[in-house]
This record gives sequence, C-alpha cells and structure tokens, in this order.
Amino acid sequence: MQNVLQGLRIVEASAFIAAPMCGMTLAQLGADVIRFDQIGGGIDYRRWPVTERNDSIYWADLNKGKRSLAIDLKSEAGREIIVRLIALPGANGGIMLTNLPAKGWLAYENLCRHRADIIQLAIVGDRHGGTAVDYTVNAKVGFPFLTGPEDDERPVNHVLPAWDITAALLASTSLLSALRFRDQTGQGQKIDLALADVALAAVGHLGYVGDRKINGAARGRGGNYLYGAFGRDFTTADGARVMVMAISPKMWSGLLAATGLQDAMRELGGRLGLDLDQEGARYRARREIAEVLQQHIGTQALDTLAGAFDASGVCWGRYQSMADLIDHDPDCSPANPIYHVVEQPDIGTYPVPGQPMHFGAVTRHPARRAPRLGEHTDEILADLLGMSAGEIGRLHDQGLVDGPR
Amino acid sequence: MQNVLQGLRIVEASAFIAAPMCGMTLAQLGADVIRFDQIGGGIDYRRWPVTERNDSIYWADLNKGKRSLAIDLKSEAGREIIVRLIALPGANGGIMLTNLPAKGWLAYENLCRHRADIIQLAIVGDRHGGTAVDYTVNAKVGFPFLTGPEDDERPVNHVLPAWDITAALLASTSLLSALRFRDQTGQGQKIDLALADVALAAVGHLGYVGDRKINGAARGRGGNYLYGAFGRDFTTADGARVMVMAISPKMWSGLLAATGLQDAMRELGGRLGLDLDQEGARYRARREIAEVLQQHIGTQALDTLAGAFDASGVCWGRYQSMADLIDHDPDCSPANPIYHVVEQPDIGTYPVPGQPMHFGAVTRHPARRAPRLGEHTDEILADLLGMSAGEIGRLHDQGLVDGPR
Repeated sequence: MQNVLQGLRIVEASAFIAAPMCGMTLAQLGADVIRFDQIGGGIDYRRWPVTERNDSIYWADLNKGKRSLAIDLKSEAGREIIVRLIALPGANGGIMLTNLPAKGWLAYENLCRHRADIIQLAIVGDRHGGTAVDYTVNAKVGFPFLTGPEDDERPVNHVLPAWDITAALLASTSLLSALRFRDQTGQGQKIDLALADVALAAVGHLGYVGDRKINGAARGRGGNYLYGAFGRDFTTADGARVMVMAISPKMWSGLLAATGLQDAMRELGGRLGLDLDQEGARYRARREIAEVLQQHIGTQALDTLAGAFDASGVCWGRYQSMADLIDHDPDCSPANPIYHVVEQPDIGTYPVPGQPMHFGAVTRHPARRAPRLGEHTDEILADLLGMSAGEIGRLHDQGLVDGPR
Repeated sequence: MQNVLQGLRIVEASAFIAAPMCGMTLAQLGADVIRFDQIGGGIDYRRWPVTERNDSIYWADLNKGKRSLAIDLKSEAGREIIVRLIALPGANGGIMLTNLPAKGWLAYENLCRHRADIIQLAIVGDRHGGTAVDYTVNAKVGFPFLTGPEDDERPVNHVLPAWDITAALLASTSLLSALRFRDQTGQGQKIDLALADVALAAVGHLGYVGDRKINGAARGRGGNYLYGAFGRDFTTADGARVMVMAISPKMWSGLLAATGLQDAMRELGGRLGLDLDQEGARYRARREIAEVLQQHIGTQALDTLAGAFDASGVCWGRYQSMADLIDHDPDCSPANPIYHVVEQPDIGTYPVPGQPMHFGAVTRHPARRAPRLGEHTDEILADLLGMSAGEIGRLHDQGLVDGPR
C-alpha cells in the first residue's frame, strides 16, 4: 500500500474483473474504496479459483485493501443507505464506480438529486446495451486469428483478460481525471465505458486500422514472430525455450556480438539483398534469420547462452511455466518489494502483490488483505453515516445489513 | 478529444508503446503533451507498420494529439532547453514521463535542481536494471504455456502487447495520483515502474499465485475454454466461429433457453453427479457440456443462432478476422462515436480512435492527428520558453533544433 490518494473515497458496486480491479488499484494507492454487496455476496463471490471450502481466492485478490459493506439491496432502506453513502459531502467523496447496471436507484440522475456534482463511472459490455465480456470482445476484434502457431488455423483465445485489465486502468485514469476536473470547475459527471470500445480503440491505437486502410494490409497469423522487426522463440541444447528479440540497432548488434554471427548475417543480408541493420529488413528476413539463430542456439546450454546474452545486452527472456515462476522465481516472491506475505481470513497465508510502481514520496507498506464480506458494515454506518449503535443494531435485526459471518 | 485535463502539461521522452501510449491517453483527455525527440526521430520513428514511403503508421497512432519538439539531445544547449521546459513553474507543469534512461541530465535529481517538486515517471525493463519488453515479460510469467490449443505443447506468444498497454495505463493513473498528491502537499516525486513488475503483479492480482500457494494447483493449458465456469468456441452449420459463455446463473439459464437444452443438461448433470447451476460444476463438466452444445450449434446457421441467442440474452460473440472487423464492422468506423476520420500528413486519411470512455461534462471532439516531427518546435520555444524569433532562428542555424521537414 502506498498512500498517495489519502482521503479519497470511492463507492464501488461491482463484479468480476474490470471494476473490482479499478477499485483495488485505487485502494492500493491509498483511497478508501468501499465495495458494497448484497448480503451473502454478489455474483462473483464464489468465482474460481476457490479453496477446498469454496472461498474465492479470485475475489480476495481483486478486492485487496477495500472495505466491505454487506447490505440488502432489494430493500428501500438498504438502497437509501447506499445513496447517502455515495452522496456524502466533501471534495473527497461523491465518487462511484460500477459495472453493475447503473439504472433506477443507482442511475447517475438519481444520485445527482442527492449531490449535484457526483462522479460516476459505469462500465458496460458494448455501446449498444449488449452483454460483452473479455472473451467475446477479443473474438470480435480479431486477435484470436492472429494468435497461435502459423500451421494451425483455429482461433486462439487469450487466457490473460487483457481487455478487462485495460478497462480497469482506463477507469482509474478517468476517475482521477474527472476528479481533477471537478476540483477545478465544481462540476461532476457521468463517465461511460464499454468493454467492447476498449478493444476497438486499441486496434486503432496500435496501428491495425491504419495499416489496413492505408496499405490494404491483411495481417495474418505470425506465430511466435514479432511483427515489424526480429523476434522469435528458440530451443536451447538442454531443451529450454527462450524468446530472443532485436528491435533497435543496439539490440541487433548485441545479438550478433553474443552469438558471433556477424559474418553469417552479413552473408545472409547480401544473399537476400536486404540491409539487416534495418528493422523492417529483419522482419522480412525473419525466417532466414531464425534458421541461422536456431542452429547456434540449439547447440548452447541455457546457462552458457544466458551468460553470453547478458554480457552483450541482448533482449531475451526465458519461457517459464506459471508453476516455475511462482515456486522458484524470486521476482514473484517477497524478494521483490512489490510482494508481501499476507494472511487472508478463510483462505490462508500467501504472498500478494501491491502496485508495481514505486512512489518516491511515500512509504510502501505491505499490501492490505481483502475484507471479509461485511467486515466494515458497522464502522461505515457509524463513522461515515453517523448512525448510533442502536440504529445499526436495528438494521441488523431487520436483516437489512450484515457483518462478517 | 475530450478536454477534462485542460491546462495540464506533460513532457515526454519515449519510444515504442508503453510511454507513448500513456502520453497519448493523457493528450486525448486534453493535456498538453510535448514529446521531444532527437532531430531526425527516435528509435521508434520508423517502426512498422510503415507506408510505402517508410512513414510510420505506428508512430502516428501512438502520438496522436501531442506536440512535437525536435532537438539535438547530444548538445548541452539542447539538453538545457529540455530541462527548462520540464521545470517550468506552475501547478500544471513540472511533470515528465519517460521510458528512455532517466539518467545524467534527465535524472530526477538533476531536474529537481531546477524545480523542487518535479513529478517524473520512469518506465524501465525490469527492477534489476535489465532490458525487458512485452514478449520477454510474457514468457517469464507463464502465459505462453497456458495459451493455445490443448493438443499442442509449444509456447504461444501474445500478439496483443498487453503488458505495454497495462504499463501505459498504470503510468497515467500514477501520474494523476502524484499530481493530486502534489496539489495537496506541495511535494513532487519520482515514480519507478518496471514492465516486468507490471506482469508479476498481475499474476498475483488475478489469483494465480494464491491458487498455487493455497491449493497447490498447477493450472495447465486450457485451450479455448474459459477457466472456472463455462465458455468455449463453437462452429456453426455455415462455418462461422462463435464464443459462447455462461458465467453467471442468468447467462446459463439464457443459454439453456436459447438452445432448448434444459433437459439434456439436466440429464448430463445427473449423469455426472454435478449441479450444473453452479459455475464450478460447469467448469468441471466443460467438455461434456461443450459436446452437447456443439451438437446443437453445429446444426444452426449463424443468423438463426444469433437471433435465438440475442432473444435470450446469451453472452456470446462472433470471431471476426481483423480485416472483417476493419472493413465491415460499423463499431470499428465513424459509426462508433469513438472513431473519427483524420488526415495524417505523410500518411493519409483514415479513421482513428479517441479514448473509449465518454465524459459527460465535456464535448467529444474528433481525435487530433499526430504531429509531424518537430512541428511545434518553434511555438514551444516562443510561447513556453519566451524565446524571440531571433533566438529561435539562431538555434535552427546552429542545427540545435528542427522543424517539420
């Protein structure tokens, strides 16, 4: 936890990845992020991976550092409490994040009746009002036909929910932008973000639309080759897999120095009529370059190769299994200052990450664990809404709010 | 362009994706982002895709809405001008973004000698000082062995530079957080962000580390199946590919209603001893569910299937090629308000996206094109640094700055 957003309060109504990850990011930067859920948990409360006892590791990891309020959202009284909480006065409040339907009592217009300068960011599926999730969005924008082996025509889904992550961080960027705007103008606003549009914009920002419209290019499946310069995976003599890249001139000369292939590549460039010092030429000659490189790398043990590569500043990386990464790589452990061992109630004790960026002006504290569902119900009602113990007790008695079980 | 960050000024020294995309995001939100480059262009100035005349569509797309300053960074005079520009006074200035080495004259400590409350965000490869790029980072964290067909053991690289995108948006989130911190405390800071740590943190945030440490799970390659609930790709009678998902109970009942497979799935659940209304059970029974579903979907034409799916609110999507998306899908055209047709000098006229989120308090203007290299050199020197036409002329004569060619 790094306290650069101290004081800021965000009320979150969310499920799955994009909105929870946005809130978690802001919580790890010091904001007071209050996630409210229906008593018993929302639709992502048992999302896999779960423990043997069906407690969700997924939910814990995406809600680290937040406070949890469990409340009956079907009741008028429960909804009134949430609206009061969102609309609390002050420059640090009046901010709401959701990927649940922002309709009816949760609609921006309704919240504005209680506080005129509300900031609400609502993540939806697509701009037409349809459902869309990371996998369907990825299918729509074409990456599954660009990803995977060149000798296999089947679409390849991403396992990494890249569009959810992108949406989460566009959301945090947007909320902080809108907050600055409100600080300067006094004006709140609704911000709408469709997951499909996140991917559709990225396709343009990354040059695919321009390449097609200007060059008429239909980029095909490129296997493990990097596009536009040289890069591919190779197998060492001892069976390790490595990714080797040469984008910049420095990376290319480093690779040649490390492998001693200067003459071979000069000869190859001459034969192909290409100046391999140009990144585009390296892309055109990628298959031939890879063949020469594989002949060299295939004779080297990983350790030898790693030594030579690192000595010459080659841009390369070893493929690891996720299990190897988590079991053996110090970078994915508390040896890396972004990781701390945390005890998560109901789940256990394991290393969890904070944010990867380091802020020089504040101290990095260990990542805070996720709340238990309803863990902060009473303190939120008392401290933020000024309710008495008697009032809070009555809400419990009526089944309108709940604490941790 | 949506002007929520009006007035803010960010000086950018960058190359490739992460830092340029961060700056472009902030520029599309209204910030004055000044990218400076060595005269003639930095190492990403000719990055593919390029036009026939070797002008980079990639560079244009990642620098939309910025101003460009071309200057001799090897000269003392050129460096002095950049430091003055970064250190200009005012609450909106003193902010610098880079993924070039923030050393020597560009080091945070040096900038602070000219303005004490500088905010500098520096993106590096890994925390040990090594080079790392999206592909090598992805190899390290294990996704290539989880991605791709289950019957193929080769690692599968992502084509989408997901880690660069994530780093870009963590950077924009961080800069805005640090700006708020400075507004409140008067204190600037250095923010360090390693691309490798971006991926290492995500592996934790997404539950992989906890699943391994708590459950001892070694998650294997899952092909196109969704993890933890039901989802997979299917082929229709007319050869279209569709992604079909059922995470929530509503998605599952919608899928059953649309396909009329309620009885078949009830029978299947009974046979397997699983309650398929539970998402975890749907994951365990994914292969059997998929078999039943494929028998149904394989007999349907895409249009029929789409009608039934949409009528029942099924979460599904069609796989498109990138070419189909760009040529025929209105969502990837100016029919979608995030896209506008823009004339990009040296390249041509084509649709480019703004930011996918819509800010209610400001008007959305068309995305601004990228600058030509050095297009704003003179106006920046005159307006921001107060140089006279004579001084600027001398800098040109000495070859220390350059305008567009």
